[in-house]
Amino acid sequence: MTEVNQRATMFVGGATGNWKIKVNQPIIGEGLPSVARLSILSPEQQSTGIWTLRGVSSYVRYVERDEMTKLQVVQDPLGRPDSTCGALIPIQKSQEWWDLTQEERRNIFETQSHHIANSMKYLPAIARQLYHSRDLGEPFDFLTWFEYAPKDAGRFEELVGHLRSTEEWKYVIREIDLRLVRD
Amino acid sequence: MTEVNQRATMFVGGATGNWKIKVNQPIIGEGLPSVARLSILSPEQQSTGIWTLRGVSSYVRYVERDEMTKLQVVQDPLGRPDSTCGALIPIQKSQEWWDLTQEERRNIFETQSHHIANSMKYLPAIARQLYHSRDLGEPFDFLTWFEYAPKDAGRFEELVGHLRSTEEWKYVIREIDLRLVRD
Repeated sequence: MTEVNQRATMFVGGATGNWKIKVNQPIIGEGLPSVARLSILSPEQQSTGIWTLRGVSSYVRYVERDEMTKLQVVQDPLGRPDSTCGALIPIQKSQEWWDLTQEERRNIFETQSHHIANSMKYLPAIARQLYHSRDLGEPFDFLTWFEYAPKDAGRFEELVGHLRSTEEWKYVIREIDLRLVRD
Repeated sequence: MTEVNQRATMFVGGATGNWKIKVNQPIIGEGLPSVARLSILSPEQQSTGIWTLRGVSSYVRYVERDEMTKLQVVQDPLGRPDSTCGALIPIQKSQEWWDLTQEERRNIFETQSHHIANSMKYLPAIARQLYHSRDLGEPFDFLTWFEYAPKDAGRFEELVGHLRSTEEWKYVIREIDLRLVRD
């Protein structure tokens, strides 16, 4: 039975799209087929790509009220004209992660790994959006999307490098790093 | 663009299915079209129903480790031969609920409403499964499914009555109560 998820955003890799793919590198596990471009589409849009990744911008899972208040002050939305660099990092976490309780996951995510506090240091330079994919039956659990200006590329590498060194990342069993430039 | 969610369970209302619908009553908001029977299907199964509700059995959001340990000891799986009574209660919560943080939702869910502790009193008599629907773009946020023996029908009414009286239920903006009997 087919269905259309009206909440989903689609990342479509193929011959067309506003974003030119410069790097498509598997970090952990299997990669994605090589394509020239990426389109970011809403559910009602038709696409003819080679692959499609779907995710939903959902309610917050880990951010607490004081963190949310700080984030709302400091973060910028997607689509800034000078943010011509993009990164799409699809991630799958292990069954062990998903068998943890919420408080155990929050403990690894923030108390041990400082995911929120550390990422906050890179705002507003790095704009980002998290899309949830696991409950959609997708191959990845999350699609993380980032936008930044070329002058902030070094800071973005620092942010990604830090995340990959955390306790949280020990639960990542598949990760792909796509880097893009907007036309 | 169409998709098949391999994680989803489908509740299909129509002319066929193992479960005969005895009650189909809107509690809050708009109801569902009247149908004779309900089928519970996996994604690859074809159906020709009047309506289909989809949900995913997902990772835990609110249950903490000690609660999970107690639940695992005391709860029974679905499908017990003598559990010929079923209840499907689809629920939608308000945007206000979804704008809360995890800890704020947990506070209302358990500290104020005792959702887990109170429901535990009805185990193993009432077997239940929660399906998440919100991120699937469905009209409901949750599909709650219960199975019990006819002799425990009174206890089930008590459980449902308690849940509807809680602080948590003030955030429910649509609710339908379907009662079923298995052939």
